[in-house]
Amino acid sequence: VKSLQLKKYRQEEQCFLVEGNKSVIELFRSDFEIEMIAGTEAGLSLLSKKIGDRKVDFFSVSERELESMGSFQTNESVLAVAKMKSRSIPVPASDKFLLALDDIRDPGNLGTIIRTADWFGINEIIASPQTADFYNPKTISASMGSFCRVGVVYVDLPPFLENCIVPVYGAFLSGQNVHSLKFEKGGIMVIGNESNGISKEVEKLVQHRISIPGSGKTESLNASVATGIILDNIFSSK
Amino acid sequence: VKSLQLKKYRQEEQCFLVEGNKSVIELFRSDFEIEMIAGTEAGLSLLSKKIGDRKVDFFSVSERELESMGSFQTNESVLAVAKMKSRSIPVPASDKFLLALDDIRDPGNLGTIIRTADWFGINEIIASPQTADFYNPKTISASMGSFCRVGVVYVDLPPFLENCIVPVYGAFLSGQNVHSLKFEKGGIMVIGNESNGISKEVEKLVQHRISIPGSGKTESLNASVATGIILDNIFSSK
Repeated sequence: VKSLQLKKYRQEEQCFLVEGNKSVIELFRSDFEIEMIAGTEAGLSLLSKKIGDRKVDFFSVSERELESMGSFQTNESVLAVAKMKSRSIPVPASDKFLLALDDIRDPGNLGTIIRTADWFGINEIIASPQTADFYNPKTISASMGSFCRVGVVYVDLPPFLENCIVPVYGAFLSGQNVHSLKFEKGGIMVIGNESNGISKEVEKLVQHRISIPGSGKTESLNASVATGIILDNIFSSK
Repeated sequence: VKSLQLKKYRQEEQCFLVEGNKSVIELFRSDFEIEMIAGTEAGLSLLSKKIGDRKVDFFSVSERELESMGSFQTNESVLAVAKMKSRSIPVPASDKFLLALDDIRDPGNLGTIIRTADWFGINEIIASPQTADFYNPKTISASMGSFCRVGVVYVDLPPFLENCIVPVYGAFLSGQNVHSLKFEKGGIMVIGNESNGISKEVEKLVQHRISIPGSGKTESLNASVATGIILDNIFSSK
């Protein structure tokens, strides 16, 4: 179980870790296949009240064993191992927004972006191969259960964007004010890397450069905060 | 140095840790008193090119020693110890916005909120005593240098809010749509705890309940993402 903290072993086993009571409950409500549940007696008893009668192997372990299996010091008394899902590449359409992540490296940021996308009803994200792993325990945890509803598919962004017929928007430090831009009904919104923003290759394929006006002295916003502000503007202008 | 990761020792010594090249450079540009700098030879030489001639003790250490002092596995080759500052309680005014944090517990969230406030030109935050510590290394790190420009003062929120004459806004899951509300020129914006939102005692003192419309199935947004969206709406409606 512990080895699933590393991508290499997740890929070998095609399994991933879900930690904490809230996330495991969401897992039970989803169509992910569950391999097993480990938890303290208290954790399992609490869980059993909230889930249906799906047949899953339950293992009762000590608090210490549980901590040693998971990636958090306290993981709220339960932990699940689930099977990865295969997903098809999303098809851009003129009446919906896709999020495209160009090298978001921090799994916590990725998880928060997944949660934010879910809030605004976006359930498909494409991401460059260098983006943090969807199945990283920190991504799963930060998504607060939204990993069950939002999928991330890893694709090489330049050819994908080159061939798509919907408008491509990108978040930059200098661009059109996000408040004055009239967004189309659908398109692709590209969010760049935490330190370097959108890469040169992807930048060429962005038709609408947008930015969030600010009056302070910090250089930039956190990537997931910027994503939230932009999505809020997209969905309030529609 | 390592002991400064714990609040108890930070308070005893009235000192805190600043890790990483970017944050240490910002520290040099601020009026924080710097006690000492530790870094690898490469880190110190890189740093010396970016800072003026302030008299500070520099210690050259090995990468391993540096890692053992800091709270991150890789802390980008330099680390500083600086003196805490005493701050006075901000005075609400009718032409500016104050942010009030009601038990934000995660230091990463607090740091990201500080960075977001800085982006929008807010440099004073008040926070309940249970809110994460401003000087926690994770707060400092997530603020990406904004800890130099934005201060957090810990106060008991109910009496503070009760006695203030500016409008008090609060973020709730159900409230007036943040897009349709016309904000005053100044006031206090309250953001609640990550799991439980705004506490009962503070809720009574909120005059305008606001919420961010969403169409998805997740229960809530991350606290720092919600803060960013609300501040963007406040400053774009002015």
